[in-house]
Amino acid sequence: MSGLIEPRVLKGFRDFLPGQELRRKTIEDELVRTFESFGFVPIDTPIIEYTEVLLGKGGGDTDKQIYRFEDHGGRDVSLRYDLTVPFARFMAAHVSELYLPFKRYHIAKVFRGENTQRGRYREFTQCDFDIVGVDTAFSDFEILETMYRSFKALDVGEFTIRLSHRGLFNRLLRRIGAEESSVEVLRTVDKLAKVGFDRVRTMLGELVSETHADTILEYIQPENDYDSTLHKMSYLAGGEDADSARLAELHTMITSLGLGDSFELDPSITRGLDYYTGIVFETFLAALPDIGSVCSGGRYNNLASLYTKQELPGVGSSIGLDRLTAALDELDGNRVPASTLEILVLMQDSTLAVHYYALAAKLRAAGFSCEVYPEDKKLAAQFNYAEKKSIPVGIICGQDEHGRGTINVRDLRTRESYNDLSFEEGIEQIRKLL
Amino acid sequence: MSGLIEPRVLKGFRDFLPGQELRRKTIEDELVRTFESFGFVPIDTPIIEYTEVLLGKGGGDTDKQIYRFEDHGGRDVSLRYDLTVPFARFMAAHVSELYLPFKRYHIAKVFRGENTQRGRYREFTQCDFDIVGVDTAFSDFEILETMYRSFKALDVGEFTIRLSHRGLFNRLLRRIGAEESSVEVLRTVDKLAKVGFDRVRTMLGELVSETHADTILEYIQPENDYDSTLHKMSYLAGGEDADSARLAELHTMITSLGLGDSFELDPSITRGLDYYTGIVFETFLAALPDIGSVCSGGRYNNLASLYTKQELPGVGSSIGLDRLTAALDELDGNRVPASTLEILVLMQDSTLAVHYYALAAKLRAAGFSCEVYPEDKKLAAQFNYAEKKSIPVGIICGQDEHGRGTINVRDLRTRESYNDLSFEEGIEQIRKLL
Repeated sequence: MSGLIEPRVLKGFRDFLPGQELRRKTIEDELVRTFESFGFVPIDTPIIEYTEVLLGKGGGDTDKQIYRFEDHGGRDVSLRYDLTVPFARFMAAHVSELYLPFKRYHIAKVFRGENTQRGRYREFTQCDFDIVGVDTAFSDFEILETMYRSFKALDVGEFTIRLSHRGLFNRLLRRIGAEESSVEVLRTVDKLAKVGFDRVRTMLGELVSETHADTILEYIQPENDYDSTLHKMSYLAGGEDADSARLAELHTMITSLGLGDSFELDPSITRGLDYYTGIVFETFLAALPDIGSVCSGGRYNNLASLYTKQELPGVGSSIGLDRLTAALDELDGNRVPASTLEILVLMQDSTLAVHYYALAAKLRAAGFSCEVYPEDKKLAAQFNYAEKKSIPVGIICGQDEHGRGTINVRDLRTRESYNDLSFEEGIEQIRKLL
Repeated sequence: MSGLIEPRVLKGFRDFLPGQELRRKTIEDELVRTFESFGFVPIDTPIIEYTEVLLGKGGGDTDKQIYRFEDHGGRDVSLRYDLTVPFARFMAAHVSELYLPFKRYHIAKVFRGENTQRGRYREFTQCDFDIVGVDTAFSDFEILETMYRSFKALDVGEFTIRLSHRGLFNRLLRRIGAEESSVEVLRTVDKLAKVGFDRVRTMLGELVSETHADTILEYIQPENDYDSTLHKMSYLAGGEDADSARLAELHTMITSLGLGDSFELDPSITRGLDYYTGIVFETFLAALPDIGSVCSGGRYNNLASLYTKQELPGVGSSIGLDRLTAALDELDGNRVPASTLEILVLMQDSTLAVHYYALAAKLRAAGFSCEVYPEDKKLAAQFNYAEKKSIPVGIICGQDEHGRGTINVRDLRTRESYNDLSFEEGIEQIRKLL
């Protein structure tokens, strides 16, 4: 006992056991397939960067949460806390080697020393995809369509992407003279789902006059359909303009392409962050409304202004992979297999080991995943191993079968056996079982 | 200019542009496929851990290179510098929830504040695979076979896995009374490829007597074939034993399974690290001998002794992904496409945008990756974009084609066009072009 170190992990950090890691990878692979089918390309950036690069001129809540330290060369460095700031730095550094419009995705870990009591992790995975260098309804639509296809591919059941526009909201605030408290107003409206209508009304009343609070409350309530809501938004903001035209154009594209059922215009969506300037959106799963948005984002008019004078307008979206994974676990009861292995060749007689390894190689060449149990142990122990590893099929071959050139195939779930099959018959039987 | 932050990255760190990141992912995917076909399962561990957990009782060169700092809660924490120590901690923490033998792979970033002048990175990716909880020739063989299949799958050309055994070497050192300087002797022999035979002779002479230095030098020189080398090793170590029997058994398996051409018994392979106790191995590419070993490892008799009293013997191997990627770039002249995108639908007439997006959706449903150019720009600019993004096929459809229900398919590499095709004819033509 003395001298042993406790094998603990830090609060807010986690190990991923094989089942969890396979689940994470499956979701990630599905997203990558979807992103690449839309022409997004992957990039990566360092986990450690100059603090100055990540924090810019500083300020904001993020500073307190950032992992910041001095490296061996006395440099002030930090771990990335999101994928947006590194992307902005990346674009400023590489735009001349690349091309515009540039569509990237980035799935990677980020770090925040957050309060873990709210069930948050200090190391978590973000999944961002953006189109920069273009400001059109087409690129807005493409982000929305990519989100739609991603959630279809992930088979999450019904979902709704709620859409709004920051330009229209800002115009409303200017019209009622609430421009100066616009950040606070946006943050207050953003709390609607969490704190409820009455509390938001009270909070708004403290920021602007009661009449104006009522106008804002009227503005953020959706009507029965997209067109009526858009009409009300335009009216209250002071009439139609390019922003309302953008929302109308998006509506045409969404409905013409048959995606209408999954989209709603919801003016209460604001996204608290003040860098959005165009459309903003959030995504909710019908089966799990309480977990909040699983995919959010919007349009910004200048990604990399901290690092370059070149204007880079863009639109982007971010999936919280940890929250989404937890959601999928809840939806399907977390039935994640412990491995992807299909076939275990049992070590029934270790003098036949070379034969077993040759069999396994042939099965792999036929497209199966396959391993030989690597020790001469009782079959009961080997079956137990197969069960713990969720291996569906076993192959048993003793001296008799070896002599006859056959194998026994066993369904390890039902314990049914198919004996004395030729290799080809065995493969056919395994295909049926898998 | 004033106020702009320079978008620089830290020395020893890198951005991955799309082509590089796609290359990295392709290699990783190929390795994952191979590992899973052998029944290895993925795990992940935190990038930040308690310093005590990562450094154990301290000591060694690694301490100076580790990224170590105090977190918000005043904890002494560090970034992982390899994947072996976290795996040991992981096994000690989770062995009761898992099963043995346990076969895991782990592909992830690690951090070392190394001298970058030798072309080393401070953030790099390791790829480890291990089998723990079993000490048999079978599991040794399985690691070797997995390495063999991995390099075949990666299509690296000819390669040689050089194999030796630390148990035999240790026995030789005991026999000549050089036990106490064994670590230094092993490290000296490990330098053979780098500093040459004569220098190693001199260095050994300073550690042990000249006669013993000559014995060691005789020992580490391979004979003409595996059997002769093994015979000499056993003889000089004092006769046959379980270790020489293990090497003989491995030879039988390797040759019986047809892998003999890629394996050599090479007693000069020692792996400097003192935790190996059984077989040790390194992998060299015939086309690039100078880059050194691209995959190395060996057997250890107790993985997690820092954290648990449970003995966990194992065998494992590690691929240096950055070195391997550089090697593959050199082998194929780094012909990496800038994207995986197959088809660009050109925005020839923006009034047909809905039609273009519908076409793109149909092409995706047919299995292609496809994007619509998201802006109404001159076709020349759109072709230029396609070239920069290495997109092989374009689809052009103006009012005339739209009226006739046809499309024009264009090979963007040769600029050849196939005009007025029905959608089905178009798909057929695209299949031919890709």
